[in-house]
Amino acid sequence: MSKKIRASIMGGTGYAAAELIKRLVNHPNVELVKVASIDHVGKNVGEVHRNFGNRLKYTLENLTPEQLVADKIDLIFLALPHKVSYQMAPRFIELGVKIIDFSGDYRIQDVAKYNKYYKTEHSNPENIKSFVYGLPELNRDKIITATRIANPGCFPTGTALATLPLGKAGLLNGKVRVVAPTGSSGSGVAPSEGTHHPIRFRNMKSYKPLSHQHQPEMEQTLTAAGGTDISVDFIPMSAPFGRGILVNVIVDLPSHVTEEQMHKLYTDYYKNSPMVRVLPLGQYPEIVAIAETNYVDVGISLRDERSGTKSFAAISAIDNLVRGASGQAIQNMNLMFGLEETTGLNDFGIWP
Amino acid sequence: MSKKIRASIMGGTGYAAAELIKRLVNHPNVELVKVASIDHVGKNVGEVHRNFGNRLKYTLENLTPEQLVADKIDLIFLALPHKVSYQMAPRFIELGVKIIDFSGDYRIQDVAKYNKYYKTEHSNPENIKSFVYGLPELNRDKIITATRIANPGCFPTGTALATLPLGKAGLLNGKVRVVAPTGSSGSGVAPSEGTHHPIRFRNMKSYKPLSHQHQPEMEQTLTAAGGTDISVDFIPMSAPFGRGILVNVIVDLPSHVTEEQMHKLYTDYYKNSPMVRVLPLGQYPEIVAIAETNYVDVGISLRDERSGTKSFAAISAIDNLVRGASGQAIQNMNLMFGLEETTGLNDFGIWP
Amino acid sequence: MSKKIRASIMGGTGYAAAELIKRLVNHPNVELVKVASIDHVGKNVGEVHRNFGNRLKYTLENLTPEQLVADKIDLIFLALPHKVSYQMAPRFIELGVKIIDFSGDYRIQDVAKYNKYYKTEHSNPENIKSFVYGLPELNRDKIITATRIANPGCFPTGTALATLPLGKAGLLNGKVRVVAPTGSSGSGVAPSEGTHHPIRFRNMKSYKPLSHQHQPEMEQTLTAAGGTDISVDFIPMSAPFGRGILVNVIVDLPSHVTEEQMHKLYTDYYKNSPMVRVLPLGQYPEIVAIAETNYVDVGISLRDERSGTKSFAAISAIDNLVRGASGQAIQNMNLMFGLEETTGLNDFGIWP
Amino acid sequence: MSKKIRASIMGGTGYAAAELIKRLVNHPNVELVKVASIDHVGKNVGEVHRNFGNRLKYTLENLTPEQLVADKIDLIFLALPHKVSYQMAPRFIELGVKIIDFSGDYRIQDVAKYNKYYKTEHSNPENIKSFVYGLPELNRDKIITATRIANPGCFPTGTALATLPLGKAGLLNGKVRVVAPTGSSGSGVAPSEGTHHPIRFRNMKSYKPLSHQHQPEMEQTLTAAGGTDISVDFIPMSAPFGRGILVNVIVDLPSHVTEEQMHKLYTDYYKNSPMVRVLPLGQYPEIVAIAETNYVDVGISLRDERSGTKSFAAISAIDNLVRGASGQAIQNMNLMFGLEETTGLNDFGIWP
Repeated sequence: MSKKIRASIMGGTGYAAAELIKRLVNHPNVELVKVASIDHVGKNVGEVHRNFGNRLKYTLENLTPEQLVADKIDLIFLALPHKVSYQMAPRFIELGVKIIDFSGDYRIQDVAKYNKYYKTEHSNPENIKSFVYGLPELNRDKIITATRIANPGCFPTGTALATLPLGKAGLLNGKVRVVAPTGSSGSGVAPSEGTHHPIRFRNMKSYKPLSHQHQPEMEQTLTAAGGTDISVDFIPMSAPFGRGILVNVIVDLPSHVTEEQMHKLYTDYYKNSPMVRVLPLGQYPEIVAIAETNYVDVGISLRDERSGTKSFAAISAIDNLVRGASGQAIQNMNLMFGLEETTGLNDFGIWP
Repeated sequence: MSKKIRASIMGGTGYAAAELIKRLVNHPNVELVKVASIDHVGKNVGEVHRNFGNRLKYTLENLTPEQLVADKIDLIFLALPHKVSYQMAPRFIELGVKIIDFSGDYRIQDVAKYNKYYKTEHSNPENIKSFVYGLPELNRDKIITATRIANPGCFPTGTALATLPLGKAGLLNGKVRVVAPTGSSGSGVAPSEGTHHPIRFRNMKSYKPLSHQHQPEMEQTLTAAGGTDISVDFIPMSAPFGRGILVNVIVDLPSHVTEEQMHKLYTDYYKNSPMVRVLPLGQYPEIVAIAETNYVDVGISLRDERSGTKSFAAISAIDNLVRGASGQAIQNMNLMFGLEETTGLNDFGIWP
Repeated sequence: MSKKIRASIMGGTGYAAAELIKRLVNHPNVELVKVASIDHVGKNVGEVHRNFGNRLKYTLENLTPEQLVADKIDLIFLALPHKVSYQMAPRFIELGVKIIDFSGDYRIQDVAKYNKYYKTEHSNPENIKSFVYGLPELNRDKIITATRIANPGCFPTGTALATLPLGKAGLLNGKVRVVAPTGSSGSGVAPSEGTHHPIRFRNMKSYKPLSHQHQPEMEQTLTAAGGTDISVDFIPMSAPFGRGILVNVIVDLPSHVTEEQMHKLYTDYYKNSPMVRVLPLGQYPEIVAIAETNYVDVGISLRDERSGTKSFAAISAIDNLVRGASGQAIQNMNLMFGLEETTGLNDFGIWP
Repeated sequence: MSKKIRASIMGGTGYAAAELIKRLVNHPNVELVKVASIDHVGKNVGEVHRNFGNRLKYTLENLTPEQLVADKIDLIFLALPHKVSYQMAPRFIELGVKIIDFSGDYRIQDVAKYNKYYKTEHSNPENIKSFVYGLPELNRDKIITATRIANPGCFPTGTALATLPLGKAGLLNGKVRVVAPTGSSGSGVAPSEGTHHPIRFRNMKSYKPLSHQHQPEMEQTLTAAGGTDISVDFIPMSAPFGRGILVNVIVDLPSHVTEEQMHKLYTDYYKNSPMVRVLPLGQYPEIVAIAETNYVDVGISLRDERSGTKSFAAISAIDNLVRGASGQAIQNMNLMFGLEETTGLNDFGIWP
């Protein structure tokens, strides 16, 4: 590919934007054109995301969709919160530019369910179905030809990657239980009571049990993956580290399956997915092994002790800002523009 | 009560022992006589548990059961690891002293299951049934008349307190899913790869999914509580804080129940249990609110969206070293010796 | 002492207030009457300081000095920020009630210096000299007869306790270098960029180097302690733990002194100070050994390698909210009311 | 440069080795040949340094210097502990290969001082003077022509970079006070009491005050930088984060200097040093801004309040494993082999 993808970002001050900017300026096939924001306007990105120091030329600018598109961009990343994306996306659609949207606004096909869980009235429901759900391991072919991507949520990404092989094999049915701690970076850049260090550094809590807005997204995705009569019961937890999500899924499987069969099912499913690593039996994912990277680690365990349906645990670990947001967005971009899926995404994390 | 309980400790160097010593020396009805240990022999307890500074007279001594009992003690706390307790307990039984055992050795009535999960051969199975499982909110009456207590495990305590009301109401049936992070103090005083700070401070992992040794203890307890056909699928997690366990339980309930009914069921069940606090609907437990104390916070959520069985989440938070070990031991001691159940246990934790 | 001290608090929502309330309700000689606040008015204290749960009767009330004194209190604790205390204190002075003030408003005798460092204009300078600086190990006799106490700042407390013996011995002269990390609880209850967990949990920074408002307080105290020509160069640091301050002081000493002499000087100085522990030579203070307590650990080192003046390090550790605020306030109250200095203050901290 | 540098590592299991391997395999001009170790022999590097997953081909092999050199390497990195390097280095010297040594064994020219501080008897003192002290901002020209580099210690690197401009300007004289916290990764991969998470995560302590083995290295370097009559009084601290060192230096400066002059002195000194960033006046270094990178941030403050000598604070932040070890080693390698100094070193860190 000779010509670089010209891409801009709308929403440049969040943590996902920090990760996105870093990976775009390092990406061999991308030219990051502009970074738009309504906060910190006029500041260099390095004043807000301090890891950049004074080394990048980008200034945060308050730009309209029209102004952004006037720079002849091929792609806009909407790193915007829910309820803001559905106001901006229609204008980019009219302007004919490709879109990767980070919010939840174009993920859920059932707009009534979206409205209920996001406590709003979607103002652009007619465009929802034109977005492809950007989970490469499920929708790779659709993403390749897509012009608009709804980039998946962080918890749904981890949950899907722990369960996709079951769906394809016809083993995903009924109630799926998901319990998942997330790091504090998931709460965003705005300080709040929940991220106040004197409390958070030694705290852990569950929140929105069985009612988190990612629950319907999980149900839709697992159904699309081949699940039947899917109901996801999801409990997220706040944990005292910075980055990462550890997803614990428990489901029932038929009595005839064995752990070895399940392991083969998983390794087969992901054999062409370079960013998913199925761990050997007896090993389980850890946040530190994937933090700061786009990789996903998956481990499984089958309980073989009793008669009747067997309980099966699938555990995945992802970085919420990379694979759960900006890394996945780049993975989608790579596919949309005919690049190698892992371009700009195969750096090693950090150790220790 | 005029005469003080004369109590000694066997196993004085662990974190549970540190908590136990502190609460016993502060207890108005106890005289702590001796602290036995095979490690750090000859050192003052304050050299090992540094919060004591030089303010306690106790020296860690390598003492036999016979030597300990010779001091005319009423009660021995066995703060010993699994597989050591079953070697020591029979000698104290012969010597006729009351016992509160912290290990898993006398908790599980089915010795075959114990041997399987603890990977050992119990050498004193004949005494197992003489121990009462020391969970006051389930077995208060038995504890009052008991002479030997098997002090419950930390995860099983949190799990039981989240589900006991269901058992009594006949609502606990079949598969119970439990996912619970624990702080690093649960790993004990010996430094290890899993508690090495450069990794642990930003890590989280699941371990022994569906195969942890606390699983059969949970199943036995929930069955004793009224559960039927109980199977507990348990995934513990290591989290980067020091103290506490947050237990997330998900079960199915019949379609006719309502959240308000369930909340009433919980508040009624615990109305005479001064150490359990059922939170108002919409509030959920946090580690910081109970850390360093013997209190248990419990919160519930019922998913009301679908037809058929309803998913129900019960969440509890305990301090693993207090309510999950030494505080519960003292709660049991209080009951055994006719004291107010909360004596020495109603201190406020710390904030922040 | 038969009659209890009737005390109230003005400023009940900060972290120091949380620690103060806890220690007052546990204090055998105090009746806490009211807790006044302009925030969270109408809430129970346990809704704000969650370690109290629902176990205390106190409601946060918006009360004037006159209303507070109408309850026949003997003592008011002003747990107020700088610049608010000097508005409230004069009214309590007129009403004739004893005062312990937590702010910096009545600590610095030189009001011009106060105005410069606190960037304000003190509106009540005429009362400053009526306040005794409440550092018991320096001013015990004055505190016993005082009616108004300026409770010392956290960093100045640690610095003074590391150097008082030098002052008395005539060894404190000229430049004193102080470098001290503090935990995040020192930043108070309001979430801010500096206490935002995703950054703070792995960050450390120095702030206000050589210009912190505690610098003049340190200079005044070390001078009062016998220092001559004192200039304190102070660098505070923000560290990623919750509670505690570790103070590192480096000064020059004459060439003739030995480390053993210095150690004897320190142990002699503090032999009647029950809350200060001088560690054996070769041992140095750690935050965990004093966290959550009113105790102070002090360790020293003398560099003996060179000719000329010798470099001397004195290191102290305190809990910023206990010995650096509320515990010290109670220590002062005990002295003012003829109680044992350590009453309500000799609890063991936590381990681990 | 067409031909790649062939380099191997002796000592492949430490944290510095993990960082070194990562940066070497990513380096455009290097071929990493072998990784030798006496621990974990036969394992893939990804089994030990888990961020590598299964993506690298290197096996940890127990290899002699002769075996390593037989692979026609240009350069050996000795990522070995003190006292081991002086056993291995002479053999590589005989074999005629270039050396970058991570240990303290060839840093201190005065072998008596080395023996005293490292509590050993150096067995290869005759080669010490053939090593160039690898601090590029001080010794760039010597490094370019060097064949053997003593890679500086972490604390001395931070201290030197905070003070080099003073030395060149003739302003570095007499006593230099250095107080510096370090993250837990500085303690290495072996779990120990000091890195045990339940304690470390909320602890901070000073250790080896005025007697740390980096003290003589600092004195030698500051003297080489132009300092006169230098005596460094150093207090290191253990802090509860993973990576980074924050160095606080306090010195006396003549009364005539101004803060603006000092700031100009610093910016001028580092104007050709691409890895050092002098912050604007009023800004101070933070660990998070440089963690995971080879960059150094430096900030200064001059106290202008008093007559006589002025107190001056210079504060620097480095990543102990990058700029304090492996990054600096690569910076030295780049210079030795005629490459751009920043090659492989200008990645952005992480945010948050």
